[in-house]
Amino acid sequence: MTDAIDYASYDRIRPIRWTGDTLELLDQRRLPFATEYVACADSDAVAEAIHALAVRGAPAIGIAAAWGVVLAGRAIQARDATEAAARLEPALRHLNAARPTAVNLAWALARMRAALALAQAGEGADWRAALEAEARAIETEDLAANRAMGVLGASLIEEGSGVLTHCNTGSLATAGFGTALGVIRAGVAQGRVGRVYAGETRPWNQGARLTVWELQQDGIDATLIADAAASHLMKGGEVQWVVVGADRICANGDVANKIGTYQLAIAARHHGVRFMVVAPSSTVDMAMASGDLIEIEERDPGELLGVAGSRTVAEGVQAWNPVFDVTPAELIDAIVTEKGIVERPHAASMRSLFGGA
Amino acid sequence: MTDAIDYASYDRIRPIRWTGDTLELLDQRRLPFATEYVACADSDAVAEAIHALAVRGAPAIGIAAAWGVVLAGRAIQARDATEAAARLEPALRHLNAARPTAVNLAWALARMRAALALAQAGEGADWRAALEAEARAIETEDLAANRAMGVLGASLIEEGSGVLTHCNTGSLATAGFGTALGVIRAGVAQGRVGRVYAGETRPWNQGARLTVWELQQDGIDATLIADAAASHLMKGGEVQWVVVGADRICANGDVANKIGTYQLAIAARHHGVRFMVVAPSSTVDMAMASGDLIEIEERDPGELLGVAGSRTVAEGVQAWNPVFDVTPAELIDAIVTEKGIVERPHAASMRSLFGGA
Repeated sequence: MTDAIDYASYDRIRPIRWTGDTLELLDQRRLPFATEYVACADSDAVAEAIHALAVRGAPAIGIAAAWGVVLAGRAIQARDATEAAARLEPALRHLNAARPTAVNLAWALARMRAALALAQAGEGADWRAALEAEARAIETEDLAANRAMGVLGASLIEEGSGVLTHCNTGSLATAGFGTALGVIRAGVAQGRVGRVYAGETRPWNQGARLTVWELQQDGIDATLIADAAASHLMKGGEVQWVVVGADRICANGDVANKIGTYQLAIAARHHGVRFMVVAPSSTVDMAMASGDLIEIEERDPGELLGVAGSRTVAEGVQAWNPVFDVTPAELIDAIVTEKGIVERPHAASMRSLFGGA
Repeated sequence: MTDAIDYASYDRIRPIRWTGDTLELLDQRRLPFATEYVACADSDAVAEAIHALAVRGAPAIGIAAAWGVVLAGRAIQARDATEAAARLEPALRHLNAARPTAVNLAWALARMRAALALAQAGEGADWRAALEAEARAIETEDLAANRAMGVLGASLIEEGSGVLTHCNTGSLATAGFGTALGVIRAGVAQGRVGRVYAGETRPWNQGARLTVWELQQDGIDATLIADAAASHLMKGGEVQWVVVGADRICANGDVANKIGTYQLAIAARHHGVRFMVVAPSSTVDMAMASGDLIEIEERDPGELLGVAGSRTVAEGVQAWNPVFDVTPAELIDAIVTEKGIVERPHAASMRSLFGGA
């Protein structure tokens, strides 16, 4: 078992590309069969790409939104940073409204506002350059956080373990390497992870379309299962850890993540399987006391009525399509961030790592 | 609240039709968009239709297999029932091998063998007529059992409850009315069931394709959910009962049913939601001591790699596709059969209703 990870070998997938004047987003609606980029020339296009899931994953939508602000800055005239801040506010709000659940979106926009405020205070001579530098910093820091979390999270996993993951938390969902998939990548490289299972993640099939494909690019064998087969898999002893990402982590350790995460946490506890949440500290929202307060996005029921363009359900049928759920802290064994690990999270242990609200 | 059920109004769907010389099976692979029958002229065609899921549902495959034996009887020459029994044995075995998990298949074939044995003993003058009468009896008794179970099961449900079901257990899966769907039909008619939710039931989408369509035929509103959304739904208090069918019920009360049932039972217990299994006594296998002994069918991983003819998963990806799981008796609040209800099932209470093995 070695701790050396060849990070460069995980750089194949680049979901977010800044060309210097356009933001190119790998269209995740088309994967795994087409690798096409959506070119966003303005911030409205970025907001639409986030809303329509061309780009997805909590860290990735924060990064994309930051670049959206850079694009918005290029589209306005302003004498100084103060005027720019006022004129950019509609674009910032539009980007923020693109999706409600992941806090990384609001967090990234808050960082962009803060960069403008610093420029107003005279610390940045060129507010457009300050915005671009901040977007690049958000992206660079996310990649560094993922690499740090990968090793931290893997350190909890015993050699040869089986791991089940949900949704997609890899390079596609982040600046690179991934959150939960970063832990799996590090764990496989170190021999800690011996088997990888991925749930389909209905209705958008992030596991089926994205995760197993992404791991395939790295030569990591993963076995796809129906979401509903997870408990049967756990009962057979094949899985020692469930490892997932997060869209928002509350001050008490409650975690919002892709629909189905909560059910996996219940099943894991029932079987004595441990449950790890991996997310950068930008996903921690110490201002939100508990998961009951999180707005859970409900998307078009049409996402449940067909797959990949084929309708599977009769006309006139109703469907309910919440796309996130909340896993209470008491079902979580470890929250792994780049700042450290919170085991058996609760309000006090969260506060000791992330500070007060 | 009234106990009067207009059973005739639930007779619209006829998955199994005996024409007098051909068995017509409503092709469940094509539903809900095409209602086409597969015409089976011999027992091999029936076995293939069972194996390929043109007909599915534990009671329905038992009934179809019984008619398969009738067809086999027409294809052979035999001086008497003794010779017929010997000559029919290959067809009986072929039908029995079509699917492994549901005991109803073996049970129906055992009844057909017993009918031949009675004919051998001189009690049936015409062994072919005896086989046809037995197939018809199996079908008729199943319908009567479902109607009885519907009222029995509904009696456990408090007025205005929300119910979640899984897979398809309706007319399509039985001789008519359904098992778990029979309880839901009776419960809706009596005002006991106020809300119906159906899980998609990946990978074959029985819930999405069949159950919501079948209930739509009756004017019963049902809301489709992703299988992974069940716990989030339960947390919101929308569901008081999970009601499912069964493919095999063991002597200790363990139940094999569609993959995902076990996960729902764990989630139900976690939320204080009650869990009901509805199946005719032909599904009870008192010779099988516990669920650990049940053969769990694993089907082609290809079922997970696409939906409705559209591939969703990259080439070369592995998948694991167990199509049943086992719910242990301790997670079950009630097993409802036409012979009565076993609450909190265990070996002694099962034996008291179904006799010793």
